[in-house]
Amino acid sequence: MIPRYSRPEMASIWSPETKFRIWFEIEAHAADAQAELGVIPKDAAKIIWEKGGPATFDVERIDAIEREVKHDVIAFLTHLAEIVGPEARFVHQGMTSSDVLDTCFNVQLVRAADLLLKDMDGLLEALKRRALEHKDTLTIGRSHGIHAEPTTFGLKLAQAYAEFARCRARLEAARAEVATCAISGAVGTFANIDPSVEEHVAEKMGLVAEPVSTQVIPRDRHAMFFAVLGVVASSIERLATEIRHLQRTEVLEAEEYFSPGQKGSSAMPHKRNPVLTENLTGLARMVRAYAMPAMENVALWHERDISHSSVERMIGPDATVTLDFALSRLTGVVDKLVVYPENMQGNLDRLGGLVHSQRVLLALTQAGVSREDAYRLVQRNAMKVWEEGKDFLTELKADKDVTAALTEAQIEEKFDMGYHTKHVDTIFRRVFGDT
Amino acid sequence: MIPRYSRPEMASIWSPETKFRIWFEIEAHAADAQAELGVIPKDAAKIIWEKGGPATFDVERIDAIEREVKHDVIAFLTHLAEIVGPEARFVHQGMTSSDVLDTCFNVQLVRAADLLLKDMDGLLEALKRRALEHKDTLTIGRSHGIHAEPTTFGLKLAQAYAEFARCRARLEAARAEVATCAISGAVGTFANIDPSVEEHVAEKMGLVAEPVSTQVIPRDRHAMFFAVLGVVASSIERLATEIRHLQRTEVLEAEEYFSPGQKGSSAMPHKRNPVLTENLTGLARMVRAYAMPAMENVALWHERDISHSSVERMIGPDATVTLDFALSRLTGVVDKLVVYPENMQGNLDRLGGLVHSQRVLLALTQAGVSREDAYRLVQRNAMKVWEEGKDFLTELKADKDVTAALTEAQIEEKFDMGYHTKHVDTIFRRVFGDT
Amino acid sequence: MIPRYSRPEMASIWSPETKFRIWFEIEAHAADAQAELGVIPKDAAKIIWEKGGPATFDVERIDAIEREVKHDVIAFLTHLAEIVGPEARFVHQGMTSSDVLDTCFNVQLVRAADLLLKDMDGLLEALKRRALEHKDTLTIGRSHGIHAEPTTFGLKLAQAYAEFARCRARLEAARAEVATCAISGAVGTFANIDPSVEEHVAEKMGLVAEPVSTQVIPRDRHAMFFAVLGVVASSIERLATEIRHLQRTEVLEAEEYFSPGQKGSSAMPHKRNPVLTENLTGLARMVRAYAMPAMENVALWHERDISHSSVERMIGPDATVTLDFALSRLTGVVDKLVVYPENMQGNLDRLGGLVHSQRVLLALTQAGVSREDAYRLVQRNAMKVWEEGKDFLTELKADKDVTAALTEAQIEEKFDMGYHTKHVDTIFRRVFGDT
Amino acid sequence: MIPRYSRPEMASIWSPETKFRIWFEIEAHAADAQAELGVIPKDAAKIIWEKGGPATFDVERIDAIEREVKHDVIAFLTHLAEIVGPEARFVHQGMTSSDVLDTCFNVQLVRAADLLLKDMDGLLEALKRRALEHKDTLTIGRSHGIHAEPTTFGLKLAQAYAEFARCRARLEAARAEVATCAISGAVGTFANIDPSVEEHVAEKMGLVAEPVSTQVIPRDRHAMFFAVLGVVASSIERLATEIRHLQRTEVLEAEEYFSPGQKGSSAMPHKRNPVLTENLTGLARMVRAYAMPAMENVALWHERDISHSSVERMIGPDATVTLDFALSRLTGVVDKLVVYPENMQGNLDRLGGLVHSQRVLLALTQAGVSREDAYRLVQRNAMKVWEEGKDFLTELKADKDVTAALTEAQIEEKFDMGYHTKHVDTIFRRVFGDT
Repeated sequence: MIPRYSRPEMASIWSPETKFRIWFEIEAHAADAQAELGVIPKDAAKIIWEKGGPATFDVERIDAIEREVKHDVIAFLTHLAEIVGPEARFVHQGMTSSDVLDTCFNVQLVRAADLLLKDMDGLLEALKRRALEHKDTLTIGRSHGIHAEPTTFGLKLAQAYAEFARCRARLEAARAEVATCAISGAVGTFANIDPSVEEHVAEKMGLVAEPVSTQVIPRDRHAMFFAVLGVVASSIERLATEIRHLQRTEVLEAEEYFSPGQKGSSAMPHKRNPVLTENLTGLARMVRAYAMPAMENVALWHERDISHSSVERMIGPDATVTLDFALSRLTGVVDKLVVYPENMQGNLDRLGGLVHSQRVLLALTQAGVSREDAYRLVQRNAMKVWEEGKDFLTELKADKDVTAALTEAQIEEKFDMGYHTKHVDTIFRRVFGDT
Repeated sequence: MIPRYSRPEMASIWSPETKFRIWFEIEAHAADAQAELGVIPKDAAKIIWEKGGPATFDVERIDAIEREVKHDVIAFLTHLAEIVGPEARFVHQGMTSSDVLDTCFNVQLVRAADLLLKDMDGLLEALKRRALEHKDTLTIGRSHGIHAEPTTFGLKLAQAYAEFARCRARLEAARAEVATCAISGAVGTFANIDPSVEEHVAEKMGLVAEPVSTQVIPRDRHAMFFAVLGVVASSIERLATEIRHLQRTEVLEAEEYFSPGQKGSSAMPHKRNPVLTENLTGLARMVRAYAMPAMENVALWHERDISHSSVERMIGPDATVTLDFALSRLTGVVDKLVVYPENMQGNLDRLGGLVHSQRVLLALTQAGVSREDAYRLVQRNAMKVWEEGKDFLTELKADKDVTAALTEAQIEEKFDMGYHTKHVDTIFRRVFGDT
Repeated sequence: MIPRYSRPEMASIWSPETKFRIWFEIEAHAADAQAELGVIPKDAAKIIWEKGGPATFDVERIDAIEREVKHDVIAFLTHLAEIVGPEARFVHQGMTSSDVLDTCFNVQLVRAADLLLKDMDGLLEALKRRALEHKDTLTIGRSHGIHAEPTTFGLKLAQAYAEFARCRARLEAARAEVATCAISGAVGTFANIDPSVEEHVAEKMGLVAEPVSTQVIPRDRHAMFFAVLGVVASSIERLATEIRHLQRTEVLEAEEYFSPGQKGSSAMPHKRNPVLTENLTGLARMVRAYAMPAMENVALWHERDISHSSVERMIGPDATVTLDFALSRLTGVVDKLVVYPENMQGNLDRLGGLVHSQRVLLALTQAGVSREDAYRLVQRNAMKVWEEGKDFLTELKADKDVTAALTEAQIEEKFDMGYHTKHVDTIFRRVFGDT
Repeated sequence: MIPRYSRPEMASIWSPETKFRIWFEIEAHAADAQAELGVIPKDAAKIIWEKGGPATFDVERIDAIEREVKHDVIAFLTHLAEIVGPEARFVHQGMTSSDVLDTCFNVQLVRAADLLLKDMDGLLEALKRRALEHKDTLTIGRSHGIHAEPTTFGLKLAQAYAEFARCRARLEAARAEVATCAISGAVGTFANIDPSVEEHVAEKMGLVAEPVSTQVIPRDRHAMFFAVLGVVASSIERLATEIRHLQRTEVLEAEEYFSPGQKGSSAMPHKRNPVLTENLTGLARMVRAYAMPAMENVALWHERDISHSSVERMIGPDATVTLDFALSRLTGVVDKLVVYPENMQGNLDRLGGLVHSQRVLLALTQAGVSREDAYRLVQRNAMKVWEEGKDFLTELKADKDVTAALTEAQIEEKFDMGYHTKHVDTIFRRVFGDT
């Protein structure tokens, strides 16, 4: 997480202020439940909210205390006592630090997931709009980077839409994975606190109670969360790579938007680089990498060790802030992508109609020519196109062996682009429903 | 995937024989659908099944053809023609190789997932049985590898059960991710084949139609699949690590089963090593590693390139076979784990009752002693235990400042283990329901 | 490691036959040293060599024994005793299994490194030959996939040569990392065996003695080894990616060799796909991934645990066999790469001379035109090229404001390609020395 | 890189101030070389140093300009012009942004490597001191976490010393990998700048000229650099894991230092957790993870794309700052590690002398008892130790079948710890030389 690739709303989830606010809420809700059980006085719970609720927690003060006591939660509680007064002694009763830390971390991840889901909605909307806009914009489909058969640019975007719709569903599942709360004490036995406190805090914080915790919420949940972010990042890389390819000088079928007056290069007016999608490619590598330490975090020793903590202090913000930035940047790229249908057509025509060779071959066979002869007929005309730059249709019409089997109209019919787009509606319906 | 860590049923999913059988089924079902549409003769479709259905495909023969034509699907189709005869020309019409390859790969992954789910059921069953058996077996809970508070061995296993139950749900989701079929042609436009063929094949092969494919089924699905396997492997590593710790010479609370007559070492009768769980730790590292190339596979160029293929030829079998072996091995370990409740008790007692110091401290405070004085009182007795090996309860009862505040009965009550296990039923109900 | 991506020489390093042969040699050399020390009879050492040296170890027999005793080294020793007879009791005296296993693994890695170094020599030779051949073949240099300034195809290959020369040096360092031998007993103290035995075996096996081992040779050595393989794989990916780009339909500046009669596609004669370099891209992902578990293997518990073993049984062969195959395949690709200088020139000309705009701009400034005016002058002519397809040189010569500052000859001089290649010799000398 | 895990000296290498200072130096040295060549006036080069040398670059001002021109190097040069005045137009002539950026990045990495090497020296010194201190401190060696044979605590530390000495050598090699400078222009051809400028800047900045660059310095160098950091981190994890194990309650052979008055837990005086080494375990996971995107950065497109940039903006500081912090923390842990030789002895004795069973077995055999009988004799006494807690030596002496073969003195000799430590001097000499 570096400022250059951060957006404020996501970054603020990870600020000390937000963290201490969440800690306070967890403690105060727990106090309510403890008061309800009669463990602490009801007045105490009330005063905790009254004094702490409107308070601003002094991060520097807490840091100063932590340097002394070397324990972040104790430092916070000490500062809280300065604010709340004597009733502060009823805070945190029967709880362990991890109860606060882990529940807080999950609250932060849930909020981060909510922002990512919103990002995703924006991206899906942009993809859908552009897909519909270019539903019938013909372009060459490529396998291995080599021209294959025609498709439409809308279909490319519909594919991306479907992929990100899957990613959205995965993000929702990932959110559910980490939406749990644990207030279960030193080794998860509830020895010093009633399970109903956990349930109360869970409900108030928008979480569910962790069925069984040790001292910590189990980290397989977080491994799954960060693995999903890695998969989403990989899908970002896919679309970014597609755009980078389309913007190549020799292809130039689409281009990242350049604002008027912007200079790609101080010397070369033609230089408009796909810097945003290249940047997204790099960011994807980072988000993907964070999945690995998250998985290594699962095997904590016994009821917990603290090795996961340093990892999460880093990848918590790093992965979510970076992915938020990347989704937002990708949405902007898609939204304003400059599309060049004429260049798409130009590239389609580049092979002189050779992309239709398969259909001509089939037609000859169906007209009774043997497969071997048909292949030879097609190939000899194709080679003239490939090697001498001739036009495939013209050559075929001039080939007597071909015209002996097929009429001009039949040949021309094989060059009909509509043949390739006849099922676009079907596919769009599958992806977008009946729009 | 190496024989040492393979089980036959999973390995057979990845055999050439299985692969060609699936290829045949995809082609034959597609032929049925094409016949239904009138694209090919109904008789042809029938003959394909009649001849190919009972046939054994000759792997060596197919390999020989592939060496010549350098194309695996063409090699298979050539061999199929040798079996089916002239009607073979109606096979594969309008399809592209990836239609067969990708759909087959997904069938294999789905079958692999089914085996893994079965493995998981076995593991869950073993965990549940052992958890119930040791529901009340007291043991020390440890954070940071240091004694914290008592828990039960059953709770440890209940935690593992809950974790693997989550893993099972993730595996089901992963199975759904890859349970798709694509028969959509060279760039996914269905130019040469009707979408209804795809739907027919999907249904027959136990899959659903991929809403929008390019030449290939999008690889975000597979990235997610292998990421889930990585998370499951990480949970295996967690339980394996727990057992390795418990079997340490100094701890020895549980031990992998050793068959009678088995020798841990030719010279040292005490040497019984946790080799199975150590092995599982290593296998987990491998399965986790495969998630990374699976994610890098997502960003194929344009409508596809073939870079994913070599990766999948390796991680397809490697990840599923290894995970199947690991789940099965872990099930065996859990099933036959030798548990030493007396050693658990011995370790619990090792700190002379110090694990109860927190409760004594709290009791003193509640009896009116100031927090500072209470801490001092507890500490001076605790230190005698820690440094001189005294018994904590005895020391407390002999300390007049302590007994001034608490009766003997009150002090003893703080050493009641039942205090720590009173919510075990609640937690078991959360995990296992009302059993 | 799958047959499809294996070459026999490298694969044979990892065969059971090779392994048992190395085990025998380690044991026999150790026996020699023990005999020299008087620990065992000299005759015994002699007989071990005489009987075991020419023997063929029966893998199936050893496997059968292992299934019984559940210990691979004991199984081997048992079989060896069947061959050697009573003197076999002098084999393995004072040694521990890891002495044999770890030393053997390192011998295998060293042999694998030697093959990889040989592969690398072949690759470097091919790169050098092609680089010299195309030293002056002009081609457009691209940043961001966008045309930048001219370079030569030979320079691209010289860059690859320099990169693989670095990789070769890294491989040599990696080889040295793992070229160690340990014969130090159960916890590395030489309690039961003299250090001179280790030194003797090391020398005979082409290794050096590990200065301090525990029960095992420390795994940071192997982590470094596999990390280097991952870096080499990444360099393979770079060159493979370059070739894939150059073979794109729209670029087509170079192409993987296709044998006469080979069919890229049964229907489309233009379809020649860069399948080899795509395959290399995927293989690179795999080799890179193996670095991660190798690093996780370092932190073995205390004097050793066995978690590294399963990892190494897999990545030992998987990484070296795959990289060997990849290097060999890449060498073939480079060796036979079909280069199209005329297409390179065509692409260079595609922007109508705009690649020279920077030089014209500079010349105008040096001729006294203000930087602002100069930029305006260049831009207005460049735009006509960019938007209307005009020729840049023609436009400049027709622009009176330009010709007021520069003569025709001066303008034309700025379009001299030699300007860009004047230091090619210097760079080649840096890379290849004085050839 | 987060403040919690940062040290100021390393962090400052990555500050904007440092970066701009390096950029200035590169530009000013290049100007000197250009002046020497007569490309720019000598006075200009002088003035650039005179004005820019003592100047403080205004980071906020540069950021403000960048927001406008969207180009970091141009923003810097604009600000530099504000400082230097008209002569600023002679800055950066013939250079491309990457010349500055890449050379600067390498300067930063070299400085970071120098700090890491210094860290390493401190760690090695601490390890050596403690190793010598505990050269003869007996402790049990463990394989699989199970007691094996005696070793000394000094040997454990000598092993760590040797491992980190290797890591130091790797760091030096990694430093050399990235100690290169490129001033070669838009596609690396030196079209607009003489190669001698590169050589001059390289020398002045403590680097060597990159033999052949494209627009960028090739990223295989950086992949290797970060891979080495990952290996070093893995060695940190190994030693951290060892200490965590030794501090376990049941083992307690060594302990991280706790300052007087420090509270491990507010309630439990026995709670002293290995939090520093646990923290190091987590940090190691992070540093290791950064190797993966660094390797993915190698395959930039053609003469460069910008995808590596975002990765390096993150892992440059993240990996070096984290590793610097980790090495320093580990040094502190080693330096002040509290060692409990009496507990080591206690654990050694725990098995009642069973660790010597192998030697007794051997002695019986050598005394003429058959191997089968000897094993039976040893085992029946060992079992009494294992199952009834008897003392092994006492039992053996009381066993008539044993004493029939061995005298009391002979039996006792087998319990001599000196047997296990007789080669400690040899090993120390191998590791530390003649000290």
